[in-house]
Amino acid sequence: MMPTSQLPEAFTARLGQMLGERFSTSMALRQQHGRDESIFPATLPDAVAYARDTAEVAEIVQLCGTFNIPVIPYAAGSSLEGHTLAVHGGLTLNLMQMNGILGINAEDQTATVQPGVTREALNAALRDTGLFFPVDPGADASIGGMCSTRASGTNAVRYGTMRENVVSLTAIVASGDIVKTGRRAKKSAAGYDLTRLFVGAEGTLGIIVEATVRLHPLPESTMAAVCAFPDIDAAVQSVVQIVQLGVPVARCEFVDPVAIKALNVYSKTGLPEQPHLFFEFHGSQSGLKEQIALVQDITQDHGAASFVWSASPEERSRLWAARHNVYFAASQLRPGARSVVTDVCVPISRLADCVNETIQDLRESQILAPVVGHVGDGNFHVQMLVDGASQDEIDGAEALNARLVSRALSMDGTCTGEHGIGLHKQGFLIDELGSASVNVMRQIKQALDPRNIMNPGKIFSL
Amino acid sequence: MMPTSQLPEAFTARLGQMLGERFSTSMALRQQHGRDESIFPATLPDAVAYARDTAEVAEIVQLCGTFNIPVIPYAAGSSLEGHTLAVHGGLTLNLMQMNGILGINAEDQTATVQPGVTREALNAALRDTGLFFPVDPGADASIGGMCSTRASGTNAVRYGTMRENVVSLTAIVASGDIVKTGRRAKKSAAGYDLTRLFVGAEGTLGIIVEATVRLHPLPESTMAAVCAFPDIDAAVQSVVQIVQLGVPVARCEFVDPVAIKALNVYSKTGLPEQPHLFFEFHGSQSGLKEQIALVQDITQDHGAASFVWSASPEERSRLWAARHNVYFAASQLRPGARSVVTDVCVPISRLADCVNETIQDLRESQILAPVVGHVGDGNFHVQMLVDGASQDEIDGAEALNARLVSRALSMDGTCTGEHGIGLHKQGFLIDELGSASVNVMRQIKQALDPRNIMNPGKIFSL
Repeated sequence: MMPTSQLPEAFTARLGQMLGERFSTSMALRQQHGRDESIFPATLPDAVAYARDTAEVAEIVQLCGTFNIPVIPYAAGSSLEGHTLAVHGGLTLNLMQMNGILGINAEDQTATVQPGVTREALNAALRDTGLFFPVDPGADASIGGMCSTRASGTNAVRYGTMRENVVSLTAIVASGDIVKTGRRAKKSAAGYDLTRLFVGAEGTLGIIVEATVRLHPLPESTMAAVCAFPDIDAAVQSVVQIVQLGVPVARCEFVDPVAIKALNVYSKTGLPEQPHLFFEFHGSQSGLKEQIALVQDITQDHGAASFVWSASPEERSRLWAARHNVYFAASQLRPGARSVVTDVCVPISRLADCVNETIQDLRESQILAPVVGHVGDGNFHVQMLVDGASQDEIDGAEALNARLVSRALSMDGTCTGEHGIGLHKQGFLIDELGSASVNVMRQIKQALDPRNIMNPGKIFSL
Repeated sequence: MMPTSQLPEAFTARLGQMLGERFSTSMALRQQHGRDESIFPATLPDAVAYARDTAEVAEIVQLCGTFNIPVIPYAAGSSLEGHTLAVHGGLTLNLMQMNGILGINAEDQTATVQPGVTREALNAALRDTGLFFPVDPGADASIGGMCSTRASGTNAVRYGTMRENVVSLTAIVASGDIVKTGRRAKKSAAGYDLTRLFVGAEGTLGIIVEATVRLHPLPESTMAAVCAFPDIDAAVQSVVQIVQLGVPVARCEFVDPVAIKALNVYSKTGLPEQPHLFFEFHGSQSGLKEQIALVQDITQDHGAASFVWSASPEERSRLWAARHNVYFAASQLRPGARSVVTDVCVPISRLADCVNETIQDLRESQILAPVVGHVGDGNFHVQMLVDGASQDEIDGAEALNARLVSRALSMDGTCTGEHGIGLHKQGFLIDELGSASVNVMRQIKQALDPRNIMNPGKIFSL
């Protein structure tokens, strides 16, 4: 493994020939590719390359293999756990110019795209098909990145995560080989599930150059609702009951009073500073009536003060725009602060305990931190606002995160519902699955990438 | 790799000590474990062991590693592609005594079971919970086997396959280590998706000793319908339209006139000898009305002669019992014949072409073969009835299967929707994914099982 330092002349010369101005060692580009949304300090690659097609990616990976240079795939840069930091230096491969939509098959409800296509770009391209791509992590992430982190988000409760919505992938492995993981059939029992192996592998097994994803019919009708609760327990218990009754809510988001306060300032939402649930319902007219009636009963049984619902697209998008902006809105609660974001997911039966104990912990730790979550899946986030210059505050936030993770694990939950392991949670991964399981992951990594050039240092150490 | 022959004295002695009468080299037991539902001739293991718990499986696998003896997991024996045949001899490990239901968590809608629990046993245990386990391959297969072949079946169109319905697994890998692939949270982004890696690995990477599966709420109401069509195209085109409109049918099965004839004889169903669709609908009262009205319109637009629907549980179970018996019913069309069963799955937009061309091919080949399928997923089966003693007939059936697979692949489909690769489809797997992809599978296998003792010779050759 080469340390961060100059790259071999022959390597840079070859890339220069191949890519011209799409290869650079300029400090500005290296810095731009050396940080993500995580708390980690910038870690610069030695160079940055922009690939335009699969053949280029294969050639670049082969070249990195020859010279033993780490290669880090990079797209929207919206990951949260240090996935794209060049901790061993090397080459960051920017895939945002591979942004072609290669095919939309409305009959089969699939789309095949290059990795640099963002979810919003894909949905824009689908506008006239009556179909949409549901996975929505908030940020306008790239499809390649969403595959690599096994992203999900607000409507996974109804439509599933990237795990369920990727049909097949094409990836370049360390040897430079082009690996196709499947065909377009809806299901297959043909050999190992390489699709699911690359989904969530964080670029450590290969670089995704093509993804075929599942599309869904736009619902006949959509309605949204906002609901304020006297306390957190009432909100969370409502969710638990809604899920257990199998109500097919499309979105079911918890927003705590601190986050509501931030939204009111940032998005002028004028909501009472109480725990809220934001709902979205998809279905036929009569189906929606059933769903909403049921949810209204349940939330009122739990003392919901108000259940404001809206069918108007404008109001709906205003509402969800506000929810999507909560990360930025919350940052404004403490200008200049950095965010340390947690991401546990627990079985729904333990959600109320986990949220309550965590908010108690936050109070005692006196950390300013809104709590929001995709609670229909048992997944929630704490966004701790810390002074990036204060090691004490960072340590305090990390300590709380560690307590939160062990709380979630003690409830048979996971240390990450959707953000991934990256650099940040490698110890937690071992706590969660045990070293025998992580060793199996290491064996797979070493078999596919014996020189450890594919995004080295992520998920586990070797 | 040791050839089929006597096992080392020290090995058999040790197993005898450990298992007493649960270890045997008797010819009767070896024969019983040397065949499955496939056309392949019996291939006997050198011995058979019955494990009672995880610790025993781990110790047995370790012992097989020490003596370099193949170990083949075996449960219900209902696999169709030779998965359990001891092609390199060794020890067949029968897991049917590991039939404990370790936990049912109704709030989280999960159940944790040992591998020898069958799907019917699990559903019997769920009777009073208001929940059920939906995956239904027809045979009363074991959960461990269903995981290993990535099984699906009649209601995967609504509830998904084993890929979607396994939450986490515990497996014994070749080293004897106990590997836990996940926790009970509904989703996770924690490292490689080892759950999905073991699902469909056909016992070549490890032996599943525990599975946590997803349960689903029993539908408020259920209705079934049978629908006869003037021709195959009308039936299949109806399915295509139903799927494309996103109607959430719970089951949608195609049964061709040859199979109907067999059912009428075997199950006294008295149906017209025409192409049929069997439907099941799950939902609320009003939801069902919507679904059935829509499906009735679509099928009538395609010239459906009759649309007979039933809400009575008795009639429903009679109908689905008949559908489940089609394999045995069809066998009676030619007493003493063996069945060669195919299993392609294509994108729904190509389903009509694939079924029509295949039935044309059957006619020209003059092979007696009912065609049935889980057509809502694009998956269908041809059950070719051949004289097991006639190499000509077997070759003819295999030739037709080969033509069917290349037809499906040319339509971007798969050589197996749900039966797996086993011994039978190893060449087709390479045709489907290419050798680079199969090489990745081999690298994973060799990394986890360097001595190739875990169900060797299945999925691919090394």
